[in-house]
Amino acid sequence: MKVVFIGAGNVATHLSCIIKEAGHSLLQVFSKTKESSEALASKLQCECTTDYQEIRKDADIYIISVSDRAIDDVVGEIAHVNPEALWVHTSGSVSIDSLKCSRRGVLYPLQTFSKQRTLNNSDIPFFIESNNDEDLKLLKDLASSISRNVHVLDSEKRKFIHLAAVFCCNFVNHCCTLSSNILEEKGIPFYIMMPLIDETIAKLHELSPLDAQTGPAVRFDKNVIDKHLALLENNEDAQHIYSLMSKSIHDNHLKQ
Amino acid sequence: MKVVFIGAGNVATHLSCIIKEAGHSLLQVFSKTKESSEALASKLQCECTTDYQEIRKDADIYIISVSDRAIDDVVGEIAHVNPEALWVHTSGSVSIDSLKCSRRGVLYPLQTFSKQRTLNNSDIPFFIESNNDEDLKLLKDLASSISRNVHVLDSEKRKFIHLAAVFCCNFVNHCCTLSSNILEEKGIPFYIMMPLIDETIAKLHELSPLDAQTGPAVRFDKNVIDKHLALLENNEDAQHIYSLMSKSIHDNHLKQ
Repeated sequence: MKVVFIGAGNVATHLSCIIKEAGHSLLQVFSKTKESSEALASKLQCECTTDYQEIRKDADIYIISVSDRAIDDVVGEIAHVNPEALWVHTSGSVSIDSLKCSRRGVLYPLQTFSKQRTLNNSDIPFFIESNNDEDLKLLKDLASSISRNVHVLDSEKRKFIHLAAVFCCNFVNHCCTLSSNILEEKGIPFYIMMPLIDETIAKLHELSPLDAQTGPAVRFDKNVIDKHLALLENNEDAQHIYSLMSKSIHDNHLKQ
Repeated sequence: MKVVFIGAGNVATHLSCIIKEAGHSLLQVFSKTKESSEALASKLQCECTTDYQEIRKDADIYIISVSDRAIDDVVGEIAHVNPEALWVHTSGSVSIDSLKCSRRGVLYPLQTFSKQRTLNNSDIPFFIESNNDEDLKLLKDLASSISRNVHVLDSEKRKFIHLAAVFCCNFVNHCCTLSSNILEEKGIPFYIMMPLIDETIAKLHELSPLDAQTGPAVRFDKNVIDKHLALLENNEDAQHIYSLMSKSIHDNHLKQ
């Protein structure tokens, strides 16, 4: 498949590399930022441009992998580039119908991408969608060539997957940042937490998160909770999060 | 070493089994709850009792592994059982000096224990403390016989490790519960999140949590955040947590 990538951020970088490795032909990278487009194009050994006018017109598929608010900008250019081709975006929260073109689709990888990391792509869940059966099959073929974990899903449900992902990826990571801040103030390195964190997650492969929950908030052990809140007296944000999370943990367990 | 365990909950169960496996002699389990003490004693193939009067007096070490608020009850009985022996507790947040006896110590395993899970104990960090050098050496020998990850740490710093652990274990897990609740309402199974969760944690072995952070809150993408808050309109608790976490993520990145 001949592919043009619009965007050169974290997601575009990982996704384009994975697609190239699967044997597809990466024609070109477009990014408004010269350094980004050149860096990615050099990785992919393909052309690059910062000018919409110069985007190649002979691709089978245009993959828009930019921040959600930048998608509309790109959409405005579709008519000039190649209005007959298949255009897809990779966003969790943007509807397929934001793409104002006749052949449209979504290729949403449920993963956290940092440029510093290389990933085992075969496990990444991909959620795909198209406004027509032929392109859905094409997207299924493309996604299946890079992952064993491909699902057809509409925009409405995809929004909730994206929201759920914010909790179990972004917020999970931020709880670790807050933990790390607490330790840093006392001169204790964060890596001592890794066996605990690894086991916390390993449990989730066997137990539901509700069943896996431990700690003072489950039984709302006021004695421990009050001690912890006192230790956070100079850290209002973390204190507020501690209170709210503890209450929410307890409420979830009362509902059981 | 001849050991008596006071308590038969999650921590007591895991810790006593690990200690027995390392070749120590488990003399007896005490628990106020008959079923618990019998269940653990049968695992350990040792005696059990529910009566303080019947606790054996010939142990080298008494390990108190009960909930924080129950520790004081046990402390009241030390004088009757064996006031000359070494008594230790396994709590993160209770000071060593809560143990009103001449030889006292702490053996705090930094781990989340669920009865359903068996653990690779050799990586569990143990934080030990004693009021005298001889018993500290004894505790170091005991802890080193079950883990390669043993640290001497005072009660003051241990409190902060326990607090930090609540964030990166209990709150991490609860973010996953909230994620799972969102998916469940839409009939989507939680296991589709596991590759994302695994990668979120794998990144923390290479990057600091601050550097690993991704998602809409990093740049405070109001467009996505507002959409997500709207999706949570029937879930006030999760909505409140979402707002607070997003603000806190953004604030932490501004400080960088």
